[in-house]
Amino acid sequence: MEKKIIGIDLGGTSAKLAILTPEGEIQKKWSVQTNILNDGEHIVPDIIDSIKEQLSLLNLTEESFYGIGMGTPGKVDAENKTVIGAYNLNWSELQEVGKQFAEAFNLPFYIDNDANVAALGEQWKGAGNGEPNVVMFTLGTGVGGGIVLDNKLLHGVGGTAGEVGHIFVDAENGFECTCGNKGCLETVASATGIVNLARHYSNEFAGDSTIKARIDSGDQVTARDIFDAAKDSDTFSEHVVDMFSHYLGIATSHIANILNPSTIVLGGGVSAAGNYLKERVEKYHRQYSFPQVRDVTKIRLATIGNDAGVIGAARLVPVDELGE
Amino acid sequence: MEKKIIGIDLGGTSAKLAILTPEGEIQKKWSVQTNILNDGEHIVPDIIDSIKEQLSLLNLTEESFYGIGMGTPGKVDAENKTVIGAYNLNWSELQEVGKQFAEAFNLPFYIDNDANVAALGEQWKGAGNGEPNVVMFTLGTGVGGGIVLDNKLLHGVGGTAGEVGHIFVDAENGFECTCGNKGCLETVASATGIVNLARHYSNEFAGDSTIKARIDSGDQVTARDIFDAAKDSDTFSEHVVDMFSHYLGIATSHIANILNPSTIVLGGGVSAAGNYLKERVEKYHRQYSFPQVRDVTKIRLATIGNDAGVIGAARLVPVDELGE
Repeated sequence: MEKKIIGIDLGGTSAKLAILTPEGEIQKKWSVQTNILNDGEHIVPDIIDSIKEQLSLLNLTEESFYGIGMGTPGKVDAENKTVIGAYNLNWSELQEVGKQFAEAFNLPFYIDNDANVAALGEQWKGAGNGEPNVVMFTLGTGVGGGIVLDNKLLHGVGGTAGEVGHIFVDAENGFECTCGNKGCLETVASATGIVNLARHYSNEFAGDSTIKARIDSGDQVTARDIFDAAKDSDTFSEHVVDMFSHYLGIATSHIANILNPSTIVLGGGVSAAGNYLKERVEKYHRQYSFPQVRDVTKIRLATIGNDAGVIGAARLVPVDELGE
Repeated sequence: MEKKIIGIDLGGTSAKLAILTPEGEIQKKWSVQTNILNDGEHIVPDIIDSIKEQLSLLNLTEESFYGIGMGTPGKVDAENKTVIGAYNLNWSELQEVGKQFAEAFNLPFYIDNDANVAALGEQWKGAGNGEPNVVMFTLGTGVGGGIVLDNKLLHGVGGTAGEVGHIFVDAENGFECTCGNKGCLETVASATGIVNLARHYSNEFAGDSTIKARIDSGDQVTARDIFDAAKDSDTFSEHVVDMFSHYLGIATSHIANILNPSTIVLGGGVSAAGNYLKERVEKYHRQYSFPQVRDVTKIRLATIGNDAGVIGAARLVPVDELGE
């Protein structure tokens, strides 16, 4: 039987797990709740127990696998296989995740940051179609990202390559970022960012708008509300989406001008706005891209959604090097 | 005797040539005038003749060399070893440079764009100190650049990776760029760019300034004049240099946030302004860099100047793969 890979996508509420073929096809998928009590000390043992249980149920042994790959929140040291500063897991101290897996399984183990792993998943089996040079923007509460060059994740010297959410794009509004800077992409082109823009522009806008009315009366609005209103031709929301797309298109043009990848993938919760968003980002992306890259570096929407994590995690396992 | 490498740095007025050790030490340097007549058809034959003559003078044969590396203006296809669109050489049509060298020498031949090659030289033997991840900005009439990741030049899918001169940084002035866009880094942070800024701000500035006075009376001013005046505390010129540094610092922060290299090298003619320029760029670079990269990705001035071209060209020759 052909050997398989185990992919793990660890998140704040659950860990998604999967058994995949070396070609990236998911054969079995399940999940484990993330228990962040006691400084998140149960998280890794729970995942390990669940894998052992699953293998036993499926009558599989370690010999059936090339290895295990995992994506996790926080700052990852891929070489030493440790994680630190994953606050949604209560992992503020260094976690020896690699050591825990080495004690539990006699299998090679690989780990990387969740945004990187999602980028690798989309590059391999999603919108990237396996093209070797692909960059992903994950538009969620914040903005994350990952850079795949020559089929490999780029880490940079301090391990922070791909932090596209902190590209400075907004000199006008100067919203404060969680990182301490002002005007980062994340402050204007995330779920939080679009609400920042809406609140800001609602002061200046004089016409009719359901969204402005809700903001003015102190109601909460979400990114989704704003995109839905914009699609329904709410002029105010259209302007907000236009500004969001403008800033994001500036950032994607930077990627195109600097790295010239074949594809820039827009993923994460906000990318559910779909082609409506993509077309608007593309307009500015093309405007600010150098003519020679304008038709080379393309914008695409993520296609494998929630599976990008386990698929990218599986891709961390270097099957070719591990051999049969 | 240890084998050597031939490095060629082709420019619009002359080609610099050198014989180097595999460690990048220059042992012999000479040059050939660039004759751009007849669509630049003499350029490559003149270089080949000069190499043959030099080898004969030094009593060396092809067997003494690993290979030949060359940097050239224009759009280079490194794989097919062709050049197109090098207008300062009158090479508007495709040039089969690799084929010409293959007919002349029984030696491996490698070619890349001159900005890339200069980046490789600085990364290897200059300000990059051989660190594997280094990005260079070449500040001349325009702004060029090169990206070295993992000791290798990044080309991107269309061969335009590292075109940092076309990063959009200036939404305020909107000076037109040679590429057709507006607000490119090159329009504000090159020798031409600083003059753009000076002319633009001279309309608004009311105080005394030798530079403003010269602009007002229609005299030509150069980048060097402006930097010299700024160093002499000409308030107007200080402001112009500050804006120049601001835009350049935004662009270097993008590189830091996206790629997280160890070093960003400032080279090219304008970098002769030295530490005065570097300190000002650094200020903005740090301001716009994500806190975790701020102390990791450093700005340095180029150190090997005109030799970067032949040294980088020599580095194109993969000595380790070619063996003894």
